[in-house]
Amino acid sequence: MSDGPFSHVALIGLGLLGSSLAHAIRAHLPATHVTGYDADSAVRARAEELGLAVIAADPAEAARGAGLVILCVPVGAMADAAAALAPGLASDAVISDVGSSKQSVAKALAAALPGHTVIPAHPVAGTERSGPDAGFATLFHNRWCILTPPADADPAQVARLEAFWAALGANVETMDAAHHDLVLAITSHLPHLIAYTIVGTASDLEAVTRSEVIKFSAGGFRDFTRIAASDPTMWRDVFLTNKDAVLEMLQRFTEDLTALQRAIRWDDGDALFELFSKTRTIRRSIIAEGQDDARPDFGRADHGD
Amino acid sequence: MSDGPFSHVALIGLGLLGSSLAHAIRAHLPATHVTGYDADSAVRARAEELGLAVIAADPAEAARGAGLVILCVPVGAMADAAAALAPGLASDAVISDVGSSKQSVAKALAAALPGHTVIPAHPVAGTERSGPDAGFATLFHNRWCILTPPADADPAQVARLEAFWAALGANVETMDAAHHDLVLAITSHLPHLIAYTIVGTASDLEAVTRSEVIKFSAGGFRDFTRIAASDPTMWRDVFLTNKDAVLEMLQRFTEDLTALQRAIRWDDGDALFELFSKTRTIRRSIIAEGQDDARPDFGRADHGD
Repeated sequence: MSDGPFSHVALIGLGLLGSSLAHAIRAHLPATHVTGYDADSAVRARAEELGLAVIAADPAEAARGAGLVILCVPVGAMADAAAALAPGLASDAVISDVGSSKQSVAKALAAALPGHTVIPAHPVAGTERSGPDAGFATLFHNRWCILTPPADADPAQVARLEAFWAALGANVETMDAAHHDLVLAITSHLPHLIAYTIVGTASDLEAVTRSEVIKFSAGGFRDFTRIAASDPTMWRDVFLTNKDAVLEMLQRFTEDLTALQRAIRWDDGDALFELFSKTRTIRRSIIAEGQDDARPDFGRADHGD
Repeated sequence: MSDGPFSHVALIGLGLLGSSLAHAIRAHLPATHVTGYDADSAVRARAEELGLAVIAADPAEAARGAGLVILCVPVGAMADAAAALAPGLASDAVISDVGSSKQSVAKALAAALPGHTVIPAHPVAGTERSGPDAGFATLFHNRWCILTPPADADPAQVARLEAFWAALGANVETMDAAHHDLVLAITSHLPHLIAYTIVGTASDLEAVTRSEVIKFSAGGFRDFTRIAASDPTMWRDVFLTNKDAVLEMLQRFTEDLTALQRAIRWDDGDALFELFSKTRTIRRSIIAEGQDDARPDFGRADHGD
């Protein structure tokens, strides 16, 4: 597989995910030709400077001749991006993406590119950084990439896309788009919503100053601010496109939080202790499966000074 | 100050905080004599093996002759621990602690040790680990330690305790106990409550398996599991002793979350985008003030493999 499953890959959108893909392909599939496009001309210029890919002046040109086209744009921008690249698309190209909600993306891409092979994908990986400078080659190492092929997808093309992601270091899993959206609602979308909320709540207080919130954030709050520093456009689109699953998980979370609130109000220490004990085991499993750093405090550097 | 502000320090409780204090005193104030006690005999034995301190068989013996006695036990255990060490306490000793809520601790210690100098303290530092093996000397470096001396405290003794914490690498701030409890409710207690809740919500789902939650936790959820792996006894006591401030902050959080829920339900992308943009600036301030690791993803090691 030294030539890789696709000899030419086009990346549409060169932010954190697109630029990481460019680095990862160069590191793991060096024979692959990579073209790229971003709707923002400043990003295109920076991507050119960084040598991320052969940068095209329009999306159709970037897609021309590519065996795999990956849309790395916010999920709300997928339909327009697909329509714009369609004129350059080869009839046998595979079209995929990296979006965090999958039912809406599947619908948008199928509508924009009728007759083409669309296999949506979601690498469950990222950082709080955005833009073409944020990417790095190892972002997908030992992370899961979920493919949500439509029921009538060609198994050979699904296997090619799997091989592509595996070559970049990812573990690949295939599931139904609706199930993906439910799983990610709890493992990713709700955590982001809650983190954005509490950081907003803290910044609106009158009795506690902003400077106190910042100074004493090491008590736990700072962990939430990392997630709440993620790309606003990307996350707005995630909540608008995975609305039903997010609202369902949010309802369950609110019920559970209300039960804890009641336990605090009525001094029910046993109920608190029971929950606080059971949640430890999940952390151990996540570390055992290599999905987080085992060192205390994520191995943060700030204790070493 | 090579001899340090206290020639003999007694540590009552040898978990994460007590053992970190032992390491930090040895590293920064090596001339200080350190005695220690823990109510758990297995912890005492382990502390002895680790050479953390001169381990005493009972708390009064550990406190005997100490100029500073620091209670490093869950806040609900402060009153009993203070009563148990009282027989050994020198009349001029300073009694302090490391608890996360301060009004209840001030009251408990004053009641248990009438006539003694009590200056409660809270180093805003910790990890998700517990026990005598979890401690390390740099835990307090560049972290804030909040002192909440009673209004009639002797300024000279407050200054000695400040000098002690500064010698361990901490930045020291003095404030009223009630204000401390309000500030920490938002920067520490509410984040922990929310993290415990969402990890509990995730583990109770039927449609999403536990193994899926673990596999796809890199999408954001894993950050919450770290906090939700903290010591259950300690946190139960925090919520029971700082009830009013936690319930107040929880009420504000719930209102803000309900507003976001409504924005999602009614497709109000502008409201989502506005909040998601404003929360980024707090992260930048926290990093600028040295209260978190500036590297993406906290500098987690898991991208390097």
